[in-house]
Amino acid sequence: MSDETDPQSAIDAQGEQRRAELDDRIFEHNAGDEQEGIPFVGAGPGDPRLLTVAGKELLEEADLVVHAGSLVNSELLEEYCDHAETVSSIGKDLEELIPLMRDAHEDGDNVVRLHSGDPAIYGAALEQMDALEHEGVPTYFVPGVTSAFAASATLRTQLTLNEVSNHVAFTRPQGKTLTEEDDHIGEFVEMGDVTTCIYLGTHAVADTMDRLIDDGHDPEIPVAVVYHASWPDEDVIVGTIGTIGEKIEEAGYRASAMVIIGDAVTGAGYERSYLYDGWADRGPDDDADDDSSETADSEQTDPAETTQ
Amino acid sequence: MSDETDPQSAIDAQGEQRRAELDDRIFEHNAGDEQEGIPFVGAGPGDPRLLTVAGKELLEEADLVVHAGSLVNSELLEEYCDHAETVSSIGKDLEELIPLMRDAHEDGDNVVRLHSGDPAIYGAALEQMDALEHEGVPTYFVPGVTSAFAASATLRTQLTLNEVSNHVAFTRPQGKTLTEEDDHIGEFVEMGDVTTCIYLGTHAVADTMDRLIDDGHDPEIPVAVVYHASWPDEDVIVGTIGTIGEKIEEAGYRASAMVIIGDAVTGAGYERSYLYDGWADRGPDDDADDDSSETADSEQTDPAETTQ
Repeated sequence: MSDETDPQSAIDAQGEQRRAELDDRIFEHNAGDEQEGIPFVGAGPGDPRLLTVAGKELLEEADLVVHAGSLVNSELLEEYCDHAETVSSIGKDLEELIPLMRDAHEDGDNVVRLHSGDPAIYGAALEQMDALEHEGVPTYFVPGVTSAFAASATLRTQLTLNEVSNHVAFTRPQGKTLTEEDDHIGEFVEMGDVTTCIYLGTHAVADTMDRLIDDGHDPEIPVAVVYHASWPDEDVIVGTIGTIGEKIEEAGYRASAMVIIGDAVTGAGYERSYLYDGWADRGPDDDADDDSSETADSEQTDPAETTQ
Repeated sequence: MSDETDPQSAIDAQGEQRRAELDDRIFEHNAGDEQEGIPFVGAGPGDPRLLTVAGKELLEEADLVVHAGSLVNSELLEEYCDHAETVSSIGKDLEELIPLMRDAHEDGDNVVRLHSGDPAIYGAALEQMDALEHEGVPTYFVPGVTSAFAASATLRTQLTLNEVSNHVAFTRPQGKTLTEEDDHIGEFVEMGDVTTCIYLGTHAVADTMDRLIDDGHDPEIPVAVVYHASWPDEDVIVGTIGTIGEKIEEAGYRASAMVIIGDAVTGAGYERSYLYDGWADRGPDDDADDDSSETADSEQTDPAETTQ
């Protein structure tokens, strides 16, 4: 950070520029490309094997890894960053982090910024990137596996399930960051066919469930809580809107758990999809407005799998 | 498939069992563990470098890879599956796929089922898994990076952004699979602070946007379409609810694109988060009900990054 610039001014300046003209790099590069500058890498949910190949390669070439402290599984740092200097971002503000990364980059070091999960989900990566870009340091995103996907893998279910759940919401409960009005958990549950994945809400499970019950939602709706999905101390607690609050309090978890609400949690009651159901026999003009128009790429491309 | 069992019966039987008792493997294994049986692997969005380390290792050890045809980037198959037999699932129904995988597994082959993206999102994996389990073949999930995360990486933005977007919806539009009533796109957009990611909706972008306008939504809301996120032919088209339909029709895309609606698309206008903002200086009893209670694991763990 140059002495004259404070981070919010840098963020605002980058935002103004972004409104005026799209960054050329959006069109020049594809997701997954190695690019110039500091990569903001999604570490995945925890298990070192759930990091991407790109993330692993970048960490193995790194001189300095600035990571999210206890939010990143230390096994991952031990496995891929043994040779590098590692610094936890916890407790450091932008005024400290930005010069640290900038100076290392300008000294010719390979710098990697390691966020947990995917950096696009509750990541606070962009403010660091904007502050660095404002200082002349290029940056880019490398996506990762989010903890909701590790949680569903552990639960042996899908977040969408034919005739059970058609949509998925990633959300967080009201609290210091979010007003009551912007807490949409009740609205998502109300829709009936949404799997609601609550991030940053472990400490508020009991309150969240109480609000759902007060609002008239069925206390029998299944809820699963996956603590530290994919970590060695991963734990699974299952219950319902009516029972899960007490179970979590008994278990003593106050953070680092994914809360999933909806019938998809049980993986039961779904119907076989159109997929793999004599798909090849259906004519292309079966229904002009149906999903078979997703098949432009390949006559037999199946709609239910496209662009996951 | 044994001759007596049809797939829906197998699915129903597995579902009944699941309702009665949770699968022991949910508690015995963590996401990311190598397990007995056939892994259902998320291939990620396309780029071979965006596959997980676990997925790469499983493919490299595979004898038979049953993949999602043109939905999986052929570069990925070339890079990791050169030594293996590869079979596309496109055009094959469960009655053909299940015996193929079962027989190879029973012959002692390493079988991998490769889905695009993450298999928990519009994946139709569970019905194959249930049919295999019913035949005595164990299976498990290996999560992956979903295309929405590759799209946000390409767009150089986050799907959640402080003061801009607090929530993310993964959704699909009405069509053959989904009724008008179960199409929630308008409701998500109405909430104002949700980034709406539409899967399986490329062919219906113009219709979807027309409905949003008819329902009174602001035609100036930003929309980005990322075709084949992370593939060599990746393309980005940006516009608004009012303009994107025509742009997509001009570009000629009918499938394999991620449609993202909301202000987060531009990455502009957000506020610096509490994260990195003198966090360390805030006392633990700053607000008993705030996100700082997310910090149970570590006194200085930052709430905005927990369990992404």
